Amino acid sequence: MAGNGKLWLSDLSNASDRSKSEMKEPLEELRLCCTSWRFAAETNNLSPWRTIPPECAGYVEEYMTGRGYRYDLERVSKEARVFANSVKLGDDGRDIWIFDVDETLLSNLPYYALRGYGLEVFNPAEFDKWVEEGSAPAISSSLELYGEVLKLGFKVFFLSGRGERHRNVTVDNLIKVGFKYWDKLILRSSEDGEKHATEYKSEKRDEMVKEGYRIVANSGDQWSDLLGSSVAIRSFKLPNPMYYVP
Amino acid sequence: MAGNGKLWLSDLSNASDRSKSEMKEPLEELRLCCTSWRFAAETNNLSPWRTIPPECAGYVEEYMTGRGYRYDLERVSKEARVFANSVKLGDDGRDIWIFDVDETLLSNLPYYALRGYGLEVFNPAEFDKWVEEGSAPAISSSLELYGEVLKLGFKVFFLSGRGERHRNVTVDNLIKVGFKYWDKLILRSSEDGEKHATEYKSEKRDEMVKEGYRIVANSGDQWSDLLGSSVAIRSFKLPNPMYYVP
Repeated sequence: MAGNGKLWLSDLSNASDRSKSEMKEPLEELRLCCTSWRFAAETNNLSPWRTIPPECAGYVEEYMTGRGYRYDLERVSKEARVFANSVKLGDDGRDIWIFDVDETLLSNLPYYALRGYGLEVFNPAEFDKWVEEGSAPAISSSLELYGEVLKLGFKVFFLSGRGERHRNVTVDNLIKVGFKYWDKLILRSSEDGEKHATEYKSEKRDEMVKEGYRIVANSGDQWSDLLGSSVAIRSFKLPNPMYYVP
Repeated sequence: MAGNGKLWLSDLSNASDRSKSEMKEPLEELRLCCTSWRFAAETNNLSPWRTIPPECAGYVEEYMTGRGYRYDLERVSKEARVFANSVKLGDDGRDIWIFDVDETLLSNLPYYALRGYGLEVFNPAEFDKWVEEGSAPAISSSLELYGEVLKLGFKVFFLSGRGERHRNVTVDNLIKVGFKYWDKLILRSSEDGEKHATEYKSEKRDEMVKEGYRIVANSGDQWSDLLGSSVAIRSFKLPNPMYYVP
């Protein structure tokens, strides 16, 4: 990792003519260091970051495209479903489950796969083009949770950092991949401007509470989806080692 | 993992007469599943739990005694030191850094090593005996952070779930392993009784804020050290896959 004072990275770069068995140890060291970085990211221990550590590019790619990411998603979905089924809902229709959209309901993996899984600095114009295609696939474990939550009688609110100008394409994309119903789809208006996500989403949750809703649960891949004011009784942090939204 | 509907566990139990190479895949599957469990635990996605999953006993032991736990600790400590050095302290001596004690400053690994690293249900009487020995070693990466935080001029508060009756032995243990100074050592009084840690620690933080302190940072191995009211500007979650404190 950059600046952690360990020498494994230079060890690795000098290792091209080593035998496969001699390579094993530095690769294991790299795996452990990148796992520590990923843990620090997932537990919100890192300062704001713009790209993944270059030396972890291979690690993150393997994680995102292999079983690691999928198993982590499935585990969160399962825990959330267990919780959902344990909740005794009021008969006033005021119990809500909030879902973030990107990397929570919809996957932008096809976009990030072409950009090193977080290795490149985020390009808003390029990302807008991708959003406007409306072709993001569903995260299937979230689709499963969403179905269960609806069936149990929760009100379902989608709270996204996407702008109002992307409402139509977002609606179409969500419906196309199976998220066919919601009680509210909240997008950033011009008034929300450049607010940090934590502030914007907290304000929106404050409004829900003022309107008499009980925020029972909240699912999101960013801590800025989950922390701040009017936090849910249970928050579910989905994995995302590719980018950080403050 | 218990109840996740996958068959890898029964695969494993039938694998005793397989060749080493045939064993590799189920072991990799087990590693991935236990990593997902650990992520879910560290990101606070699990419902309250009393013991680690039995099938992950070997995984947790390897993590705790190998490089994994140490690297994770070092990464958190490093991130916290970067943050500490970035803070512009007021000149009124009111900027504080809170540290939890067990698994944050002091390690109970010698105790848990004899009890399957979280495989056995917590035994308060047995754990009290261990605490009363006063021989818990320091977590060295936390000692490093603590030294830096003191040097920078933060006030240092230790906020622990240990009871007042263990004050003397805790003081002796802390000093013996290098934590020689603090501004407050807050322990559970009889009034705090059986409160959940989140409630007890939130109340103590509320008091700090009322007294005019600014809670700049908080280091703890449990989410119940960090969440609730009067949360710190930055919270640092240390790894601990061995036990859960509500």
